[in-house]
Amino acid sequence: MKKVRIGLIGTGYIGRCHAIAYAQAPTVFPLEAELECDYLAEITPELAAQKAKEFGFKRSTGDWRDVVQDPDIDVVDICTPNFLHKEIALAAIEQGKHVYSEKPLALTAEDAKLMYQAAQKAGVKTLVGFNYIKNPTTQLAKEIIERGEIGEIVHFYGTHNEDYLADPNTPRDWHCIREKAGLGALGDLSAHIIQMSQYLVGSQIQRVVGDMETVIKMRPNPQNLNEQLPVENEDQATAIVRFANGCMGTIETSRIACGRKMGLSYVITGTKGTISYTQERMAELKLYLHTDEPARQGFKTLLTGPHHPDYKHFCVSAGHGIGFNDQKTVEIRDLINGIANNQPMYPDFEEGFKVSRVLDAIAMSCQEKRWVNVEEVA
Amino acid sequence: MKKVRIGLIGTGYIGRCHAIAYAQAPTVFPLEAELECDYLAEITPELAAQKAKEFGFKRSTGDWRDVVQDPDIDVVDICTPNFLHKEIALAAIEQGKHVYSEKPLALTAEDAKLMYQAAQKAGVKTLVGFNYIKNPTTQLAKEIIERGEIGEIVHFYGTHNEDYLADPNTPRDWHCIREKAGLGALGDLSAHIIQMSQYLVGSQIQRVVGDMETVIKMRPNPQNLNEQLPVENEDQATAIVRFANGCMGTIETSRIACGRKMGLSYVITGTKGTISYTQERMAELKLYLHTDEPARQGFKTLLTGPHHPDYKHFCVSAGHGIGFNDQKTVEIRDLINGIANNQPMYPDFEEGFKVSRVLDAIAMSCQEKRWVNVEEVA
Amino acid sequence: MKKVRIGLIGTGYIGRCHAIAYAQAPTVFPLEAELECDYLAEITPELAAQKAKEFGFKRSTGDWRDVVQDPDIDVVDICTPNFLHKEIALAAIEQGKHVYSEKPLALTAEDAKLMYQAAQKAGVKTLVGFNYIKNPTTQLAKEIIERGEIGEIVHFYGTHNEDYLADPNTPRDWHCIREKAGLGALGDLSAHIIQMSQYLVGSQIQRVVGDMETVIKMRPNPQNLNEQLPVENEDQATAIVRFANGCMGTIETSRIACGRKMGLSYVITGTKGTISYTQERMAELKLYLHTDEPARQGFKTLLTGPHHPDYKHFCVSAGHGIGFNDQKTVEIRDLINGIANNQPMYPDFEEGFKVSRVLDAIAMSCQEKRWVNVEEVA
Amino acid sequence: MKKVRIGLIGTGYIGRCHAIAYAQAPTVFPLEAELECDYLAEITPELAAQKAKEFGFKRSTGDWRDVVQDPDIDVVDICTPNFLHKEIALAAIEQGKHVYSEKPLALTAEDAKLMYQAAQKAGVKTLVGFNYIKNPTTQLAKEIIERGEIGEIVHFYGTHNEDYLADPNTPRDWHCIREKAGLGALGDLSAHIIQMSQYLVGSQIQRVVGDMETVIKMRPNPQNLNEQLPVENEDQATAIVRFANGCMGTIETSRIACGRKMGLSYVITGTKGTISYTQERMAELKLYLHTDEPARQGFKTLLTGPHHPDYKHFCVSAGHGIGFNDQKTVEIRDLINGIANNQPMYPDFEEGFKVSRVLDAIAMSCQEKRWVNVEEVA
Repeated sequence: MKKVRIGLIGTGYIGRCHAIAYAQAPTVFPLEAELECDYLAEITPELAAQKAKEFGFKRSTGDWRDVVQDPDIDVVDICTPNFLHKEIALAAIEQGKHVYSEKPLALTAEDAKLMYQAAQKAGVKTLVGFNYIKNPTTQLAKEIIERGEIGEIVHFYGTHNEDYLADPNTPRDWHCIREKAGLGALGDLSAHIIQMSQYLVGSQIQRVVGDMETVIKMRPNPQNLNEQLPVENEDQATAIVRFANGCMGTIETSRIACGRKMGLSYVITGTKGTISYTQERMAELKLYLHTDEPARQGFKTLLTGPHHPDYKHFCVSAGHGIGFNDQKTVEIRDLINGIANNQPMYPDFEEGFKVSRVLDAIAMSCQEKRWVNVEEVA
Repeated sequence: MKKVRIGLIGTGYIGRCHAIAYAQAPTVFPLEAELECDYLAEITPELAAQKAKEFGFKRSTGDWRDVVQDPDIDVVDICTPNFLHKEIALAAIEQGKHVYSEKPLALTAEDAKLMYQAAQKAGVKTLVGFNYIKNPTTQLAKEIIERGEIGEIVHFYGTHNEDYLADPNTPRDWHCIREKAGLGALGDLSAHIIQMSQYLVGSQIQRVVGDMETVIKMRPNPQNLNEQLPVENEDQATAIVRFANGCMGTIETSRIACGRKMGLSYVITGTKGTISYTQERMAELKLYLHTDEPARQGFKTLLTGPHHPDYKHFCVSAGHGIGFNDQKTVEIRDLINGIANNQPMYPDFEEGFKVSRVLDAIAMSCQEKRWVNVEEVA
Repeated sequence: MKKVRIGLIGTGYIGRCHAIAYAQAPTVFPLEAELECDYLAEITPELAAQKAKEFGFKRSTGDWRDVVQDPDIDVVDICTPNFLHKEIALAAIEQGKHVYSEKPLALTAEDAKLMYQAAQKAGVKTLVGFNYIKNPTTQLAKEIIERGEIGEIVHFYGTHNEDYLADPNTPRDWHCIREKAGLGALGDLSAHIIQMSQYLVGSQIQRVVGDMETVIKMRPNPQNLNEQLPVENEDQATAIVRFANGCMGTIETSRIACGRKMGLSYVITGTKGTISYTQERMAELKLYLHTDEPARQGFKTLLTGPHHPDYKHFCVSAGHGIGFNDQKTVEIRDLINGIANNQPMYPDFEEGFKVSRVLDAIAMSCQEKRWVNVEEVA
Repeated sequence: MKKVRIGLIGTGYIGRCHAIAYAQAPTVFPLEAELECDYLAEITPELAAQKAKEFGFKRSTGDWRDVVQDPDIDVVDICTPNFLHKEIALAAIEQGKHVYSEKPLALTAEDAKLMYQAAQKAGVKTLVGFNYIKNPTTQLAKEIIERGEIGEIVHFYGTHNEDYLADPNTPRDWHCIREKAGLGALGDLSAHIIQMSQYLVGSQIQRVVGDMETVIKMRPNPQNLNEQLPVENEDQATAIVRFANGCMGTIETSRIACGRKMGLSYVITGTKGTISYTQERMAELKLYLHTDEPARQGFKTLLTGPHHPDYKHFCVSAGHGIGFNDQKTVEIRDLINGIANNQPMYPDFEEGFKVSRVLDAIAMSCQEKRWVNVEEVA
């Protein structure tokens, strides 16, 4: 059996999720290659060594270039802050490594374009960590749509709202600095729902018009709480979009949406039915079929179970629940099997670029107060 | 005690709701004038007589002009199809009658402007039937906002989605004909949520950008089901709006939103908390306060009860439920007491005009594919 | 058209609900007799006169016997405190009046038996105010069951929980005094769910075993808050029951169930499906069908609408909501039409007796700590 | 760092969950000993070898006695069918192994007693797989109760309902055979909710009265579907219970409860508030506080997050979701750390015995149709 050796770069919030997923994936799924947690990089050798121990990696380094250049590494897994994605990915691609990067792929669509084109040229495989589409529940939504159960999709309403910056006393961190984060809520959060909208509608967003606001304009300096520093990107944004197939859509995002802890949600209206979902109840999908007789019409709550995609690998009983890291585990399965079988992985860097392009188009529309065609961007 | 004599014109769907509300209002509320169901008009004397009997009106006529010109009538209550509102209202105003009209006030903002200016000039009182804001639950939302419990409002998301035309085989009725209905879902449904947004945000919508679609472009001719006739107005529409106070907003409406039977809903995000509501659960309001300690944050479901506005008149126990006609009954109370005490009623024709202006601005924006300032309209 | 003249005795909480229902019933329904709000009794002539004015009754009196003996009265409607039901009902029956009484019919099953037998002998019609079964939503549940959609019923779980006495500082009122109220939560609340269980299961409760507790044993004297008086009946009770058809059931009731404002609820499990309902969301019913394919199984939320029993008389659009008094209005319709057509009304005094018998059997079981057959009681 | 070597016996449904939890536990938690997946037993050497590979165990055997007798094994983990628990556990205890057993501990309370006494005598540590109490959400419920936030508990309503045998055409498997399974729904399902009730109420169940029914009396022979075989234990059961502290309770269980996929639920009523939970939404807890002002009372939905017990080890953002196997992972943490630190583990075999005793008492009560004191049993 082939071996796939992982080089993980970055061990913060999302790096840790990757590590948990790597740990459970071989037991959960019948992987088609042997997964080896091999090399781990952090900003110091000490931190790297400690994390390698925690995460079950064999080797560690304080310099990510070591990982990228190591001949034994098959996949470079990028879990660093966003502004480093580009440099690392390009270096990894140059070394002929497959690249698995967290979202958003880059700070701008232009950068994302460079990255996907480099990967294409080099013939390496790429995968972007849009893990929410790997949730069995959202895969079920996709299945329902593809089978035509709700007819032709005529409207997509999606949000990714959270409240991690709702408190104006929360100091300004890197999320609020353009150079580090690029866009605000749009880049950090809405990338997920935009990617998901294109996956579920089965069509690319073509035109957008948006509005945004930096509601909390100043925040305390984390180094000196008495000082206020400007917030450099948007707290919330809304866009009306049109997909290439004519479907209308609305995307909303906020990082100050009081009460939303994981407000990734969608309502997909078709000509024959409707699907409704929120990530805060990640194991249930609501399905309405207009073809039911009028006296028995209503939204049905489907609890995800073994009759739905991928769930049975976690548990053979329905309604027993799946967690955040389980989505990531499905993603790891796609990574390993994609490489094992030399097949394309989804969503790849090209899809990552297309998402970035929509994000930049929305930002441009907000600034220029007009409809923007996504092809104007990059 | 003063008497307020009602002349009701139109006895369809909404006229019947008025009649039920007139019947129960004097028992539910301590009205400040005696309410008399006096004169009723329908399109034939026979139908009028029958409905007068059913609805408990003393007199009836086959000609609405009789009601408008009757010296004993204090209030002309217009429940006719929308395209007749203007003519009847202007005639009633001319006779010095107070006018209570169903929404939308008129087919265009221009007409609505004529109507509110005529009423102002004549010094008569006016009231528009935006009954959903009379629901104790939505009054509670207003109270929470006004007390500052959720801080400053930074985002309003509102919908009025229904599915009464979701089936493409439903024949084309007056709703789909521009001359009879004016706008489609925007006029028929979103008038409610737009008015409600301005009421709850406490500020007028100033700028809009929208998109709309006639999804089902042809429908059977009701007179000949084998023939297909064009649908002349929009099935669904979305608008991004900005209120005068800077608050961002999104308004969505559809008459083909499968599964939505009464999808009037709002999510109001403030700097300190969030309110969430759907008319399908008209006796409950969800309230989140970000000031709760992190381990105890969450949306609280408030069941409307006697500690909330107006509820106790219907029942003295909490959570026992209020119905659609109960909202109308609160509206009737406002009508009768407004006249009894010679005080302004809300929402009046001026508010009705302002709503129509937003509707027309959205329609203009959709057509011209640009942001529109509502003052461009009328 | 025949006239049905009402004599209303008692104008507190529930008397007021009757008055509202009388006011709207003729507009809501095509009644088969003319309903006349004729005579009203209260404890003083002054209060009676005031209430007659408020409720739209023609005549009033400070002595309920006047109503009972008045030759023009067709129906005596008893809305007094529970301990007076028996005396008034027997007096009314003696005068050949039809009797419409609030629940519980009497303080004991023995009394209830006397009452129903007297009515039977006198040939007068009777109706008990178990209004919750008149809710279109619960009528829909009945319809689903009768059509066999959920198969044979194998389990009924029902509650009537409220929290009106949850605060131990709430002074002791008549509810807590055995002589005035009889049983505690069992009598005041669970009468509803027990009656409803027999209605929905379509079979009588035969055997019971229960447990109960007076959790808050002393309460302040309302005349002197520094003094504590004993609570004389149960705050909460649970019973396991068996219906005559073999179906198992569980009944729970509490007046100190923190958070339950109107916690009348049921979960009815059949061999092919399940129905779930709570009165706090009185316009929605959840329906699960095990015959759906496994990947599409789930509870469907039906919003009550015009395709369901009686709803269309209140509103012709689905999901627009029905309120507490609307249930009472359906009950009034049954009253008037029952008399107009000389047909039996449901639930009558015999059903009221059967409910009381179950209540007393549960109380006996709790005391004697054993299974009790309801026929042991009365 | 100390090593804890696991010997896993049985690799079916729940054995696989253990394996997944073993795989992720060291990454999720900072374990205080090194966890080693060492030896695995199945019914044939071939199956054992295959599963060892899948589950990441070093050694395998076709005879569970090899594991029990292996000197290197620290913990014997029993995931076999229930009827084998006793024999294996006693053998392991005899060898001085710590024992980690799935629930129910044994087929009868008597057997469970033997087991816990043997373990006590041998001084080995024991743990029973009541994993649902390890869920951060239920730990949060425990924390709220212990802090007195809902006052003194006065009522516990708990269910464990599923529908895995709702279809009468499902063939008779071991669950339905007394010799293999012991009790039916009571043993298979309600063990969880009974254990949970004692954990959450903080008191042992003392007296019970119950009722049960085998609704589907015959099922197809799995070897010959045309033949019907008798079902030997109950499909559903209900018990009224009293805890030692006086708290009332109701326990319901069913394996034919149409629509319940994971219907482990509780409603815990205290003198100051109420908690409500269902395992089908395992990451949310509803909390009501009666001390809130009346106009702001309501159930608050808490989404489990890093401010709640153990959650942050899985994800640092609130509301991101936890899954079934994550509960098991917390259990594994308790196992490893308990052994590492030589501290008692909870729930141990004594608690397992106490649960079995309640189960047998309920069964005895159903049979003898009377209240049973749990100490009558064993």
